[in-house]
Amino acid sequence: MDKKTTKAVGIDIGGTSIKMGLVAERGEVLATSKVSTGALDSDGAFAKVCEGVHALAEQGGIDAGKLDAIGLDVPGVVLEDGTLTMAPNITLDLAGLTTTLREAYPQASLAVLNDANAAALGEAWLGSGNARGGTVMVTLGTGVGAGVVIGGNVIAGAHGAAGEIGHLNVEPEETETCNCGCRGCLEQYASARGLIRLYREECEADGAEPVAIAHATDALAVFEAARGGNTQAVRACERLGHYLARALAAVAVTVDPDAFVVGGGMSGGWDTFGRACLAHYREVAVSACKDTPIRPASLGNDAGFLGAARRALLSL
Amino acid sequence: MDKKTTKAVGIDIGGTSIKMGLVAERGEVLATSKVSTGALDSDGAFAKVCEGVHALAEQGGIDAGKLDAIGLDVPGVVLEDGTLTMAPNITLDLAGLTTTLREAYPQASLAVLNDANAAALGEAWLGSGNARGGTVMVTLGTGVGAGVVIGGNVIAGAHGAAGEIGHLNVEPEETETCNCGCRGCLEQYASARGLIRLYREECEADGAEPVAIAHATDALAVFEAARGGNTQAVRACERLGHYLARALAAVAVTVDPDAFVVGGGMSGGWDTFGRACLAHYREVAVSACKDTPIRPASLGNDAGFLGAARRALLSL
Repeated sequence: MDKKTTKAVGIDIGGTSIKMGLVAERGEVLATSKVSTGALDSDGAFAKVCEGVHALAEQGGIDAGKLDAIGLDVPGVVLEDGTLTMAPNITLDLAGLTTTLREAYPQASLAVLNDANAAALGEAWLGSGNARGGTVMVTLGTGVGAGVVIGGNVIAGAHGAAGEIGHLNVEPEETETCNCGCRGCLEQYASARGLIRLYREECEADGAEPVAIAHATDALAVFEAARGGNTQAVRACERLGHYLARALAAVAVTVDPDAFVVGGGMSGGWDTFGRACLAHYREVAVSACKDTPIRPASLGNDAGFLGAARRALLSL
Repeated sequence: MDKKTTKAVGIDIGGTSIKMGLVAERGEVLATSKVSTGALDSDGAFAKVCEGVHALAEQGGIDAGKLDAIGLDVPGVVLEDGTLTMAPNITLDLAGLTTTLREAYPQASLAVLNDANAAALGEAWLGSGNARGGTVMVTLGTGVGAGVVIGGNVIAGAHGAAGEIGHLNVEPEETETCNCGCRGCLEQYASARGLIRLYREECEADGAEPVAIAHATDALAVFEAARGGNTQAVRACERLGHYLARALAAVAVTVDPDAFVVGGGMSGGWDTFGRACLAHYREVAVSACKDTPIRPASLGNDAGFLGAARRALLSL
């Protein structure tokens, strides 16, 4: 590789581990690593992150002191200027970590963003999205969120809430309350708990015995039942697809992306709800956007560090 | 004025007239003009537009041959690259007009955009929106549309459909069909016809005689009845406010703007539906966005040429 090629490290900080990648400007991944982490709120923990960056650079055959950019994504609400306003699922002193990184790599441009936004940017850049245009990636998991990429870059929004479509109303008639206090949010149907709830509703309506569900977010059990032809599971997955389609149709008339990407743990069940989602989307989307592709994500867990690296490269 | 100040002409093309303004880089309006127009599809018609630009520049004390930029907004679907794909309400040969303008003003950068998008950009720049951040301006009139401004510039979307929130579903239970073929679109409630329909529904439910409505889009009659305390008109306006709030809450979780602006002919009735809209928005919006301001537009018919000029200045 040409030594003049711009290179960035993407650091994807999760609740239990950090995944890092050394990435060149065109998206070539030169090296990756993964380390377990505890709380990220001490000089010792920050030093370990720097050691990781050093080791990664060495592994990729470059001097960490010559890195052009470092991108960091975290599971929390991050404003456009990189300020973290909320990170409920992790112990993280982001200001301390970024200060340490800036001191250790003064030559590198540093960018910070939300993890779902990083994944969306990664998929837009190198995965199922659109590199230069608009991509909206929906992440379906324990919660439901999205990253909104416009003109090849991801937007945070005025309060870091761009892409919070888990709380988009898709069912004004809903009587149960979402965690957020509202009723009828997409997350009430398209999260792991949401799918299980839909499934239990279908079983109750039919007087059918539900299959064994191991825990509150065991959506896999419902997907497997649907694959096996279980009528109620099939219907629950179809309803998930319908609600997701309603949400995507609302997003389409707002930002009209070039592509939708569906990712997150629940996207593993795309075979059970994707067809219903696509069909219903074409029914309810405005005509100009009916052919906008909706594709499952393709980068898996690499999307985060790739998107973080991209964000940092774009800030150069 | 310093002769080195960058200056643009904004040309707002409507169905029956063209409004133009000579605008300096900080938004100072140096001159305006308005001319009636017929079809814009002949050399003669294009020449008249150029004459208008010349006269406007002269009126503003500058040489038209030294204009830095020209922005043109049209009532149709315009892609990011300035291509017009649909303009149902006007006879317009946009390619011919832009060719003529490019030949007449070869030194000027030329930008083309949709009229609702221009109005949104104008309000973001100099009116009720946010100049550098995100603004979504909803235009309520015969139809319902919006312009979505991100980072101080307006987006067109992959198919020119960004901001087409007139076709955002706000009522999944609706049985009547919208012009677009779907059911429950915002336009079915928040357009002039929509408000009249809501009003007639309220009258029918109460067995009350409706006030005189002069024509199919005479929303003014309903606003005036509401101002006079007519119970059914008050309720119809409140329902309009509720549906608008639902749509804005969906937009908020997608792009999280700094401000919402409500414009168009129907915004003259803001006093009758604004309070209901604000109150319901705070009930249904995600918590991070509950305090996002929703304000009536403040530039009136000047928003279009100001936004067109701004777009052209941003392209320099």
